[in-house]
Amino acid sequence: MALKHKGLEFVSVPWRFTEREAIAFSGQGLVPVIVDGGQTVHDSWNIALYLEEAYPQRPALFEGGQSQALTFFFQQWVFRAIHSATLKVIVLDVFARLHEKDKAYFRESREKRFGMTLEKYAADPNASLAAFRGALEPVRPVLVQQPFVSGKGPGYADYLLFGPFMWARAMSPVRMLEPDDPVFAWRERMLGLWGGYARSAKGFPVWA
Amino acid sequence: MALKHKGLEFVSVPWRFTEREAIAFSGQGLVPVIVDGGQTVHDSWNIALYLEEAYPQRPALFEGGQSQALTFFFQQWVFRAIHSATLKVIVLDVFARLHEKDKAYFRESREKRFGMTLEKYAADPNASLAAFRGALEPVRPVLVQQPFVSGKGPGYADYLLFGPFMWARAMSPVRMLEPDDPVFAWRERMLGLWGGYARSAKGFPVWA
Repeated sequence: MALKHKGLEFVSVPWRFTEREAIAFSGQGLVPVIVDGGQTVHDSWNIALYLEEAYPQRPALFEGGQSQALTFFFQQWVFRAIHSATLKVIVLDVFARLHEKDKAYFRESREKRFGMTLEKYAADPNASLAAFRGALEPVRPVLVQQPFVSGKGPGYADYLLFGPFMWARAMSPVRMLEPDDPVFAWRERMLGLWGGYARSAKGFPVWA
Repeated sequence: MALKHKGLEFVSVPWRFTEREAIAFSGQGLVPVIVDGGQTVHDSWNIALYLEEAYPQRPALFEGGQSQALTFFFQQWVFRAIHSATLKVIVLDVFARLHEKDKAYFRESREKRFGMTLEKYAADPNASLAAFRGALEPVRPVLVQQPFVSGKGPGYADYLLFGPFMWARAMSPVRMLEPDDPVFAWRERMLGLWGGYARSAKGFPVWA
């Protein structure tokens, strides 16, 4: 989404959890990784800062230093409040759709993190979905007042929150949001950016 | 803090919970209310926007529209995650220091909101303090990376988070933060702004 925002051309490379050797050239084992000319950058926040610095004449992800600082807080909130709440809803759907070669790694690493089996972690789907929707509380008054988290137009903060929704949409048929939720309308706007770029990604339909 | 940030002179008027008649001219019953020449504005967010519009040549509270939008989210987070967690720690200290004429109103309105007595709400102070410190989690990596929530200098987001700390400092001897907490160092910076303006307010000392 940040690359589209900047209007940059790119080729994306499908990648699976256990394919460490494919990104070993980046000096570490996590995605995302970008290669731009001779530059290799990993970690989504570092990539956003890199794009902003390397392409200052393109549309800005951050209005300026204060906006970047506030977006960094927003990232911490999304990581803590939304990522784990999303995973708790969709974890068994994610597991079911993993390539066979990734299943053992995923189960082992996540069960260690959760301190329980995937099945136990996902045992109360109604409560998990309610907790996910509840975690979104602070963003609702914002999206009632303005079309995007970043204000009149989308910014990096919007892409941070959109990530978990695209993850869920790709992996799970669960209806994450009710159609009357202001976050639903925002997700529709995000899916529609750049001629429906995100909506064209493989995924379960979003019910209206 | 917003008035000091803008470098504006002002006279502040002490006010108690039940003194509705004193602010009836504002057409409602809540503080803060400001009177600026012929203008009356209430609600802290509306006051910030008013100051920014009325005094554009003074130091900005918001870098621009995106920063204002992201600060509006930050306000929602502070209100939901921090205000109630603060009150749960200090509610009995607040109650003990209220003027006699406000005590019945405070007890009745808060017990209705909490669905229990003040004493029951405050029954586990260690757990409440741990919950308060836990609620600050998303802001810690931010304050490790940069001196203020708003980046290199303080902005309206910092004043939003500072409010509950000044409330606690005024009303309660509880040590809200450990000295090795990055939020502690930030609070010190906030207390020191404008020659120690906030530190000069009546309150319990902050232990270092």
